[in-house]
Amino acid sequence: MGFFSKDIKTMDDLFVHTLRDIYYAENQIVKALPEMIDKATDQALKEGFERHLQETHVQVERLEEVFKLHGVDVKGVNCPAIDGILEEADEVSGEVDNDQVLDAALIASAQAVEHYEITRYGTLIAWAKQLGRNDCAALLEKNLQEEMKTDKALTSMAQTRVNAAAA
Amino acid sequence: MGFFSKDIKTMDDLFVHTLRDIYYAENQIVKALPEMIDKATDQALKEGFERHLQETHVQVERLEEVFKLHGVDVKGVNCPAIDGILEEADEVSGEVDNDQVLDAALIASAQAVEHYEITRYGTLIAWAKQLGRNDCAALLEKNLQEEMKTDKALTSMAQTRVNAAAA
Repeated sequence: MGFFSKDIKTMDDLFVHTLRDIYYAENQIVKALPEMIDKATDQALKEGFERHLQETHVQVERLEEVFKLHGVDVKGVNCPAIDGILEEADEVSGEVDNDQVLDAALIASAQAVEHYEITRYGTLIAWAKQLGRNDCAALLEKNLQEEMKTDKALTSMAQTRVNAAAA
Repeated sequence: MGFFSKDIKTMDDLFVHTLRDIYYAENQIVKALPEMIDKATDQALKEGFERHLQETHVQVERLEEVFKLHGVDVKGVNCPAIDGILEEADEVSGEVDNDQVLDAALIASAQAVEHYEITRYGTLIAWAKQLGRNDCAALLEKNLQEEMKTDKALTSMAQTRVNAAAA
């Protein structure tokens, strides 16, 4: 959609636009995770990021299924939000000069990513239901549940071990 | 902190950096909300944004109190994440050509902002406690509770009225 055109005229247009936004975001996350895996020192955190990378590939496929169910082209649109969140993650981790503090920073960055996804999936599910697309909502709900589980797992790692090691 | 220097050597450095990140973010939100208030058509949504603007001013003051308690300069650092989230909010709302659909888009954008704040405050509270700064944690907790309450209020407005009006 163009920067200066008003292409979103209906709730359905808004739904498709936001679906393309999260599709772009998930694909950017697939590209960003390998560097986070490399940077992590805590073994469980590294493995958690690896599992989440596999999970994200499946989430991308689920989104492609949602596009197909809804009868629209599978494509992404620029998403300055995820670009900014990932840019900040990269910037902060580049400034940290201690492995344990870096692990704490990586968890915080990953949780910012998770929260972005949680809010977008929450919105998309509500809109899908409003549009009578319970089939799409059910697939999006699976992604949402995985993001929420990942966010909780990151909180648990931070609070049981990583923050104490960093402090 | 510099882009190519490694200035974050301790958990305390990371805490202060992230405090400056959310301080910058809250100040950007203060600047962005008046336009969202202008754009909203639904009266309760407009009033909700107005209340949240007042609340955000108080949150900025609480953050200044946290800086003082912790004995560091009150200042912000660039936060590409919130810049990206607000840029996306502006971009999407500029593409919507229907007042009711715009209200739904504004709620989604505001919830992306709230979720960014929720994740940052959650992290900062955990780190403050780890660093023995329960006084700072208590103030940050007040901001977190307000953001969570705002996020819930936005969900409620969307689900009880705004999404149905848009669809």
